[in-house]
Amino acid sequence: MDMKEKVHKMKMASPKMAATIGEVRNRALSNIADALLEKKEEIFSANAKDMAAAKENGISESVLKRLKFDEGKLSSCVEGLHQLMGLNDPVGKKQFVRQLDEGLILHRVSCPIGVIGVIFEARPDALVQISSLCIKSGNCAVLKGGKETAETNRVLFSVVKDAAVAAGIPEEAFLQAEAHSEIDELLTCDKDVDLLIPRGSNAFVSYIMNHTKIPVMGHADGVCHTYVDKDCDVKKAIPIVLDAKTQYSAACNATETLLVHRDIADAFLPEMANALSEAKVKVHGDEEVSHVITAEPLTEDGYKKEYLDMELSVKIVDDMDEAIDHINTFGSHHTDAILTENNEAAEYFMQMVDSAGVYQNASTRFADGFRYGFGAEVGISTGKIHARGPVGLEGLMTYKYKLYGSGQIVGDYASGEKSFHFKDL
Amino acid sequence: MDMKEKVHKMKMASPKMAATIGEVRNRALSNIADALLEKKEEIFSANAKDMAAAKENGISESVLKRLKFDEGKLSSCVEGLHQLMGLNDPVGKKQFVRQLDEGLILHRVSCPIGVIGVIFEARPDALVQISSLCIKSGNCAVLKGGKETAETNRVLFSVVKDAAVAAGIPEEAFLQAEAHSEIDELLTCDKDVDLLIPRGSNAFVSYIMNHTKIPVMGHADGVCHTYVDKDCDVKKAIPIVLDAKTQYSAACNATETLLVHRDIADAFLPEMANALSEAKVKVHGDEEVSHVITAEPLTEDGYKKEYLDMELSVKIVDDMDEAIDHINTFGSHHTDAILTENNEAAEYFMQMVDSAGVYQNASTRFADGFRYGFGAEVGISTGKIHARGPVGLEGLMTYKYKLYGSGQIVGDYASGEKSFHFKDL
Repeated sequence: MDMKEKVHKMKMASPKMAATIGEVRNRALSNIADALLEKKEEIFSANAKDMAAAKENGISESVLKRLKFDEGKLSSCVEGLHQLMGLNDPVGKKQFVRQLDEGLILHRVSCPIGVIGVIFEARPDALVQISSLCIKSGNCAVLKGGKETAETNRVLFSVVKDAAVAAGIPEEAFLQAEAHSEIDELLTCDKDVDLLIPRGSNAFVSYIMNHTKIPVMGHADGVCHTYVDKDCDVKKAIPIVLDAKTQYSAACNATETLLVHRDIADAFLPEMANALSEAKVKVHGDEEVSHVITAEPLTEDGYKKEYLDMELSVKIVDDMDEAIDHINTFGSHHTDAILTENNEAAEYFMQMVDSAGVYQNASTRFADGFRYGFGAEVGISTGKIHARGPVGLEGLMTYKYKLYGSGQIVGDYASGEKSFHFKDL
Repeated sequence: MDMKEKVHKMKMASPKMAATIGEVRNRALSNIADALLEKKEEIFSANAKDMAAAKENGISESVLKRLKFDEGKLSSCVEGLHQLMGLNDPVGKKQFVRQLDEGLILHRVSCPIGVIGVIFEARPDALVQISSLCIKSGNCAVLKGGKETAETNRVLFSVVKDAAVAAGIPEEAFLQAEAHSEIDELLTCDKDVDLLIPRGSNAFVSYIMNHTKIPVMGHADGVCHTYVDKDCDVKKAIPIVLDAKTQYSAACNATETLLVHRDIADAFLPEMANALSEAKVKVHGDEEVSHVITAEPLTEDGYKKEYLDMELSVKIVDDMDEAIDHINTFGSHHTDAILTENNEAAEYFMQMVDSAGVYQNASTRFADGFRYGFGAEVGISTGKIHARGPVGLEGLMTYKYKLYGSGQIVGDYASGEKSFHFKDL
């Protein structure tokens, strides 16, 4: 059976998965947590093989860190599973109940999206995290991990699947793709896969987005900005910018461009440059910036550059409108901050910047499902259709309309014999 | 300036449109209603030119009916505008307010999606309807109507735009595409157009869906089913099936396939066939159906056929599971009904059928935003991402996260120096 057939079979079984009760889905999560601990030696030894192969292939230190599945990652997986169990069941929630007319009652009820395709690079813990999010939300999952962690993924997949099936989850709810060619096959399954969630580099996510008709949730790039307004408190601004750039510079929510109001440039930039230099951040800027602080030229990408590293573009702007236009032009609609004590200015900025997250006096690094209190994160979306920004379980849900009648026909309402009497119940 | 540049200019102005207050948007709707009445002679005379050209080109009677813009359509447009004014403002609603920690407050606020591209065939009243929905929701709109109504659209567009701008809506919020080549150009504007809403034939919508990276909301086909369960009340079932097929057979929510439980086939089908025959509905079925009633063979498309006409496929099924599998395989996930007095069977069917609308004992023709009490309809979506089923104004909305801080940095939370204290306010 090829990928396409397998995915079609999953699609046909997805209503069965959607119909599982919350207790069964929670029991599956609990079983998975137990099984991970029970089989940890098997998992670690598979991971050791992946690590050895990766080292042989000269994989970089930072990727090796992500490949590694150790006691620390195991316990965060287990902790995540327990947290997920504690969240409310997102399935079958009545979003509204409306009487359309006597004996004609419309319910809108939350339900799983159906079949989720998840394609992720390098991190084996992502397999556990994503499959458990799919279980909690009643979705079927096609999982494709990076080839660098093939051994670890294979073991993790069978641990997760066996534990879930033992709890009563349908067998067809899980599918693992292993061959790289299966990614392209999966991308053509637009009749059966309802949503794709790619997790990985900009180039990887862009490739997925450009090669499928399936809706994709996620973000390719994260070019976030921090705008230092003329009315900012410099003492507050410096640690925020430092944090936004350096706290984890490889993250999508790290600030890549610092915009500074001309009126405060002289007072703010030299001090900021010192702090950045101490933190080993390389500053890029145009000629104007170079007149105030030491700066290297912008790269070829200019202000569209996502460094994902200890580098920062700096630009001086005439006013807030120029900052807003800059962000809406060069940004990726992810997360952008204004640092100001002027609340009216902040409101204007937050209204006009067209991004998922708009912040006043806080680090862009706060853009994260856990920090927003969602308990679990599916990913961060820079799209505006469906979920936007950090996405919790609700990003894996849709709804259906259930209409309970007693023989009503539209003809009677069209002719005027009957009329609608809307009433929310 | 070509289409691409114009659309980009619109995108850059979309935050200005999103920031307009509800009173201005309502005043625009009121102005449009007045202007339509005031300029009706101009509109009717443009429409007369379109009608004359259409007749010359041998356009079919049913399309001519849609092309015509007369007193009746004018007054429903005006009525629609007044209804829309009465709806709550969908912009700027606080969906939640959460304290993440002291002095760090997260708001989720509804906001317009941004730039909506609307491409519609034949019906000039659609231009008024869609542009007014976009105004109410604070979105910018690129409008492309069918070439058969070019004259009418040109006049309507300028009436709508002038009236809205006079009320304070930004000039850049409206764009009319006239040349057919501009459709393809519009389809490439994935950086600037946030959502496409195509309205027209199956082939037309499929073309749009297959030729753009922009998210598309709508439905290509509407293959709806009515399943007659063994426990159905035949007296109730016959008028429902008749209505679902004949009340407006060209609609996407008309039933195209009738599934009948084997145990009730002999009792139900002959009587149903009589009623269908009286209503001039042609029945298609396989050999088994032909043994019970007169039926022509299925067409080449088989059970995937969307007749949009007075024709109906009939199939006898062994049990409800076969009906469900049939619907999930051949249907378009639009709207499907079960006719039964057995509520448990109905719940099972409504759980397992993977469609936007699942009905018990009611005509599939109820699938409609007005009949659901939404006041205004953007369209009907068979997708599961974003809005599903009949879509009201909320389908044109997204949200943004506004985070109000007082200097918080992530480093303090990562180090454990501070911790989150989530509290919904």
